Amino acid sequence: MMEFIQDLLNNARHARRSIAALSDEGKKDLLRRLAAVISAHTAEIIAENKKDLDRMDPADPKYDRLLLNEARIAGLSASLLEVAELADPTGALISAHTTGNGLLIQKKTVPLGVVGVIYESRPNVTVDVASLCLRSGNVCLLRGGQDAQDTNQYLAGLIRSVLEEYGLDKNIVQQLPADRKYILDILTAEKYIDVIIPRGSDQLIELVRKNALVPVIETGAGVCHTYVEATAKLDDAARVVTNAKVSRPSVCNALDTILVDRSVAAPFLTKLAPQLSPYQVEVFADAEAYEILESTGYSFLQHAAPADYGREFLDFKCSVKIVDDLDQALEHIDAYSSKHSEAIMTEDAAKAELFLNQVDAAAVYHNASTRFTDGQVFGLGAEIGISTQKLHARGPFALEKLVTEKWIIKGEGQTR
Amino acid sequence: MMEFIQDLLNNARHARRSIAALSDEGKKDLLRRLAAVISAHTAEIIAENKKDLDRMDPADPKYDRLLLNEARIAGLSASLLEVAELADPTGALISAHTTGNGLLIQKKTVPLGVVGVIYESRPNVTVDVASLCLRSGNVCLLRGGQDAQDTNQYLAGLIRSVLEEYGLDKNIVQQLPADRKYILDILTAEKYIDVIIPRGSDQLIELVRKNALVPVIETGAGVCHTYVEATAKLDDAARVVTNAKVSRPSVCNALDTILVDRSVAAPFLTKLAPQLSPYQVEVFADAEAYEILESTGYSFLQHAAPADYGREFLDFKCSVKIVDDLDQALEHIDAYSSKHSEAIMTEDAAKAELFLNQVDAAAVYHNASTRFTDGQVFGLGAEIGISTQKLHARGPFALEKLVTEKWIIKGEGQTR
Repeated sequence: MMEFIQDLLNNARHARRSIAALSDEGKKDLLRRLAAVISAHTAEIIAENKKDLDRMDPADPKYDRLLLNEARIAGLSASLLEVAELADPTGALISAHTTGNGLLIQKKTVPLGVVGVIYESRPNVTVDVASLCLRSGNVCLLRGGQDAQDTNQYLAGLIRSVLEEYGLDKNIVQQLPADRKYILDILTAEKYIDVIIPRGSDQLIELVRKNALVPVIETGAGVCHTYVEATAKLDDAARVVTNAKVSRPSVCNALDTILVDRSVAAPFLTKLAPQLSPYQVEVFADAEAYEILESTGYSFLQHAAPADYGREFLDFKCSVKIVDDLDQALEHIDAYSSKHSEAIMTEDAAKAELFLNQVDAAAVYHNASTRFTDGQVFGLGAEIGISTQKLHARGPFALEKLVTEKWIIKGEGQTR
Repeated sequence: MMEFIQDLLNNARHARRSIAALSDEGKKDLLRRLAAVISAHTAEIIAENKKDLDRMDPADPKYDRLLLNEARIAGLSASLLEVAELADPTGALISAHTTGNGLLIQKKTVPLGVVGVIYESRPNVTVDVASLCLRSGNVCLLRGGQDAQDTNQYLAGLIRSVLEEYGLDKNIVQQLPADRKYILDILTAEKYIDVIIPRGSDQLIELVRKNALVPVIETGAGVCHTYVEATAKLDDAARVVTNAKVSRPSVCNALDTILVDRSVAAPFLTKLAPQLSPYQVEVFADAEAYEILESTGYSFLQHAAPADYGREFLDFKCSVKIVDDLDQALEHIDAYSSKHSEAIMTEDAAKAELFLNQVDAAAVYHNASTRFTDGQVFGLGAEIGISTQKLHARGPFALEKLVTEKWIIKGEGQTR
């Protein structure tokens, strides 16, 4: 391991004490000050961001994700003020009891310690993640993408200057060099880093999953289904499915596959087609659905290949499959779901219950769009991502889960 | 992957529905019935166990761990009855709120799904783990050690026969072949297994950590310190330290290193020596402590090598180090602790608070023996192990943590 990476890791461990000494009010105040500092440096941030943008082709889809303008920087400040207002997730008493021999045994929430976040193009992640870590008393190691390195280093520098202004250890927030070769050092630093959160492409998450010795919280892909059951209100179903697909196709809670009960396939798809049409949604349909959609004159129709199921489209595209019944829908979802967000449209309460119970996903919906899976909507505030794993955090991974537990036992000389 | 391993994995996924359909009372009843069946087959279990024992040298320390006799089998039955009485950890409502647009958003606990447990010599783990998984509605894949394979297969067979008797899918509990070559198949079956829990030696845990793509909960080693601060009641401290070392040295919450404040080193060690002496505790002492202990005539004294700090002894052995003050004690613990159980003996309330806050461990003690870190003592019932990691479960990993969360959203056609 390079010496400076070793220094970075030591610095992070050492900085835990400094953030631990800051009061709850102090943390809020610091975040408010940071909001003001970022706002005051809008021009400088834009200038640094331009260096990154100049290295990228404006036609690259990453260009827009990389871009920071006045509105987006104002958004960063606003989000810092929001995080400041969120309740401190640490110090909560989870349980307490006194044993027969007089031991007081308490369980409390405490910061995780050192949180590593590996992310890609969007530089706003630097500020979002740092603010959530600061709010919850965690030290963070940020490793942003090479594309955004000038912006990220400048933003981290602003955060560090505010930490120093408050008499704190500036290494509470460190931005690692973007060079890919250092990622392995970070992933295997289990003595120094308490958790790593990868945010970004499948390839990044795969790299982290394969190589990490540090525990990982994955915020993964969403392959989301909506099952239109035989008793569904078809107007509602067409409206909800359309919303789930088109309102923001590039995000993980957007719909990918429509499962429709054979008994309502023709009327449902006939209602759906004119709603998808204005968005030119490319539909990959199985043979039966193809025939129905073709008969409606739908223009953006393809035959579904096997790979079109279980595929996260992130675009104005979706697949359609006709199923026999709820059981077949459940089997399909079990086989293809990424366990993110899954919905059923039905007026049959018993079938709805069965679906909600049996589908294995972070969020399960009855008669609503999967697009609602989100930390803000779920009442958690800003999120680091949507966890599709089952340990520690499932669904929106937000401030409340940037903690671990600690058992605290107070005695008077008891022995066992 | 071998076809039969693929079948095993498919069977496990498929069996989730069967256990999900069993009521809470049904689960309790099944565990009580299993207790009776195990009791009724005591002779047969002993006969199968003898096959395993016959393959092992009775002088091997693993021999005793492998052995099942009437008393131990009665213990298994008793533990099944206890698990039956524990509260169902699933179906608990964690949060609920209705959004402005009328969505009801609930978060509930649900079973993890398929739990894999990889363990070594002790065949009682087969029954303990299966019972905790059944109680919490989880399917389990058990992979016991080669040493215990006849006993494990027989015990799993008994459990499966009871499942069938209840009209359930017997694949709710499956015992994998003990052959080491199948471990990798299990560790990388992230599409089938929701969590893997390794129980056993450091080498096993290392193998799992290095190769697992399935999320892991480690139940690791305990390198436990007790710091005797300057204001400690020295009689209490000597008694507590002795208990922490000698009451059961082979377990993870036993003391490994005594840190003692220089100002009380001589009187404390002079009180301690005669208490450790009857147990012939081999003490690895730093130069100063060595001199003091030597002057008391202590017979089982060694000079500490650097490797004697951070070492889990699991035996009547410990290391001693004299420190300047609380800060130095905290630094030592931070460098050498395995984050399991750490204690301070002090009458200084402020120093106690500082220690409890700053030490990064699953359990932190003021004026008590580290030996209390245990699921039963902490009020959780039977445990699968003591987690020294920070995600999901920290400290005793018991029934309450064999769950994940699920967001359940009920609407009336809402879109975003």
